[in-house]
Amino acid sequence: MGKIKIYMLTILISLIFGSAFAAAPKTAAEHGLMQGFPPALDKRVTLENWQDPPYNRWGFQHVRELIPTARVSRGRGEVRPFERNPQHLDDISFAGADGETMTIARMLENTYTDGIIVLHKGRIVTEQYFNGMQPDTSHLWMSCTKSLTSAVFGIMVDRGLVDVAAKVSNYLPEIAGSTYADATVQQLLDMEIGVHFSEDYEDPNSDIWTTDYIAGWRSNSGAEMPESMYEFLPTLKKEGEHGEVFHYVSSNTDVLGWILERVTKTGLSELISQEIWTKLGVEQDGYITVDKGRFAIASGGFNGTLRDMARFGQMILQNGLFNGEQIVPAAWIKDVLTNGNREAFARSEYAGVFPNPSYRNQFWVAAPGHPVIQALGIHGQSIYINPEAQLVVTKFSTQPQAVDILMFQDAFLGAEALAEALSKP
Amino acid sequence: MGKIKIYMLTILISLIFGSAFAAAPKTAAEHGLMQGFPPALDKRVTLENWQDPPYNRWGFQHVRELIPTARVSRGRGEVRPFERNPQHLDDISFAGADGETMTIARMLENTYTDGIIVLHKGRIVTEQYFNGMQPDTSHLWMSCTKSLTSAVFGIMVDRGLVDVAAKVSNYLPEIAGSTYADATVQQLLDMEIGVHFSEDYEDPNSDIWTTDYIAGWRSNSGAEMPESMYEFLPTLKKEGEHGEVFHYVSSNTDVLGWILERVTKTGLSELISQEIWTKLGVEQDGYITVDKGRFAIASGGFNGTLRDMARFGQMILQNGLFNGEQIVPAAWIKDVLTNGNREAFARSEYAGVFPNPSYRNQFWVAAPGHPVIQALGIHGQSIYINPEAQLVVTKFSTQPQAVDILMFQDAFLGAEALAEALSKP
Repeated sequence: MGKIKIYMLTILISLIFGSAFAAAPKTAAEHGLMQGFPPALDKRVTLENWQDPPYNRWGFQHVRELIPTARVSRGRGEVRPFERNPQHLDDISFAGADGETMTIARMLENTYTDGIIVLHKGRIVTEQYFNGMQPDTSHLWMSCTKSLTSAVFGIMVDRGLVDVAAKVSNYLPEIAGSTYADATVQQLLDMEIGVHFSEDYEDPNSDIWTTDYIAGWRSNSGAEMPESMYEFLPTLKKEGEHGEVFHYVSSNTDVLGWILERVTKTGLSELISQEIWTKLGVEQDGYITVDKGRFAIASGGFNGTLRDMARFGQMILQNGLFNGEQIVPAAWIKDVLTNGNREAFARSEYAGVFPNPSYRNQFWVAAPGHPVIQALGIHGQSIYINPEAQLVVTKFSTQPQAVDILMFQDAFLGAEALAEALSKP
Repeated sequence: MGKIKIYMLTILISLIFGSAFAAAPKTAAEHGLMQGFPPALDKRVTLENWQDPPYNRWGFQHVRELIPTARVSRGRGEVRPFERNPQHLDDISFAGADGETMTIARMLENTYTDGIIVLHKGRIVTEQYFNGMQPDTSHLWMSCTKSLTSAVFGIMVDRGLVDVAAKVSNYLPEIAGSTYADATVQQLLDMEIGVHFSEDYEDPNSDIWTTDYIAGWRSNSGAEMPESMYEFLPTLKKEGEHGEVFHYVSSNTDVLGWILERVTKTGLSELISQEIWTKLGVEQDGYITVDKGRFAIASGGFNGTLRDMARFGQMILQNGLFNGEQIVPAAWIKDVLTNGNREAFARSEYAGVFPNPSYRNQFWVAAPGHPVIQALGIHGQSIYINPEAQLVVTKFSTQPQAVDILMFQDAFLGAEALAEALSKP
């Protein structure tokens, strides 16, 4: 059978079964990744390929099997169960980023979803897994970790251990020779640091690749490198001014993590456990990748289950009050919603990606007629928090590209459509 | 103050406070290991030093922070609580290996104990932690892992999935060119394989160091190596005959782990979870180190809490019946006790270390007037199981040397003294 005939047959099948049939991305198992004992040599997921497609389909659910990690203990408390109000939402349709009509089901498929939980009024209305993921599977949060770090940070600000108006060098004297010396903590929190740093995920010569090597996320190419983030962060140099432009740089968050450790004299993995993970009634321990200095990667190294991420999102939606306890100060979340610098955002490369956006305290804020808080991570990790609609959408994905704007927007528009549909009386 | 004066002062302090004071080994924290943010460069525990003293004092409680690991899930079942019957056992005295009288407390100190639990008639009579260890700390089992692998193996033999009389190559055709080709599974289980393999833990050129590199337990020196144990094990060559001498070789156990994966089509980490860890009512997930082919190190890579190790030991003591379920076949444990080849042991380098010993199904057996089953691991990991006295002693340690015969024997003699003391009417 010639190629043309196969092509015609594919179109015919698509017409019969709908194009969703053709669009479903292959699972890790369908790719043959890490199947059998031993897995085939060309199907192994390694430190060299785990962030690339299709290997990330397996990698993001097995980070601890590739990289050293520190436990984030849930403690011995009771699991806080979810109430459920199951609804069929797959067929809700909406206009995607390219203007075409799509359904929720189609969006989930198109955006390489590994799992999604939608919470409406605190109850699970849908919980779906793909690509071999299970309710007890820990998945990489990527930069959603930044918002988790922020939650701990807000607690320490509230306790008076950190002053957001103070200079970073107040807390970390060893950072005096770097761009961070004259930056404020709030500028760190808002990603308004003038720093020479390239966060181009596709460029092996970028600074974000260097931090990947140091973090143990990639095999070191053999180049001389600082042993850990503790030695790397003080080397970052100034470029531009602080406080003017939103410039998304993961190392800023790692400095926040370091400040937390310094002021509490406690490692970040233990802090997240003590302040958040033991208080949410989560089901599973989480974990966070650590480098050779035991630096926990505050900017992107956390892993946990989808349900536990949903608990975190619901806590933020409830202004920090959850499971009978004020876990994160309400003022911290109010600050996220109200005090973002839209001008700094408008001057950034992210301008236009979301409607009227800002970025505050390590959360993204959109305002399409109503406020939405988001935690976002590359390859499609997201927590969408819509207080008005009382909606939380948590989504893990393994998108081929680190930043795929169309997929990003489709996931957001899908969540917006869910908010609208579920808000109907 | 001169060195002589300090020395005199030390002696004086020893005389005043007793020699136990001087003998107490420093904790990881007292050594300054991994303290502060950042930890001092010369106090970091790394892949290069974590198995060496004093770095192992921190390393053995933080293996996952150094090496990639796979989770061994406890599932969602209830924790099986321990009954307790606390007793003061520290002052029980016994003749140590060098003939001097010592107490249990002194033995625990001298042998670099991180934690000990003594179970008598299934109840905890003492539970003590040292060196910063806590009840929820996972500690490296080292070669006690072999006995855990054996437990799973016994289950699969009972289910008819493996025949111990069959040739290894029946299950692993790819091993045909190696010494394992004509060995039986039972010979693997009993460490009676004629193989060219040096298990000299002090020699960087030994085979055990090579497996450390492959397992990811040490940084590769740059030498060309098989990518994983799956590729390494088939390269081992014959030396001597099978079935004649007890020759303790960790790779034999790794072949057992591989057989388990092949016959069950399930990874070893999942197997241990499904067959053992979800059934013991354990408190915490365990974990096992994995190499670049996701080979779980069946010979020594398991980590878990002391209490959960005690549950495992008690299960073996009860002939596999525990928590209301026959977890491991009673016949498997009876076979350990009765069918060991004492002649093969007597011809080995281990002859004389224990009274009348043998080794069967990955357990050590001693018979000082009564049968004792032991799981043993380097640097002082042990499970002592004395069915007659209904005693289980589980002990984690971080001894400076991999194999310190005197410490080994002192720990054994201490357990024997506990058995005697607790058996008194």
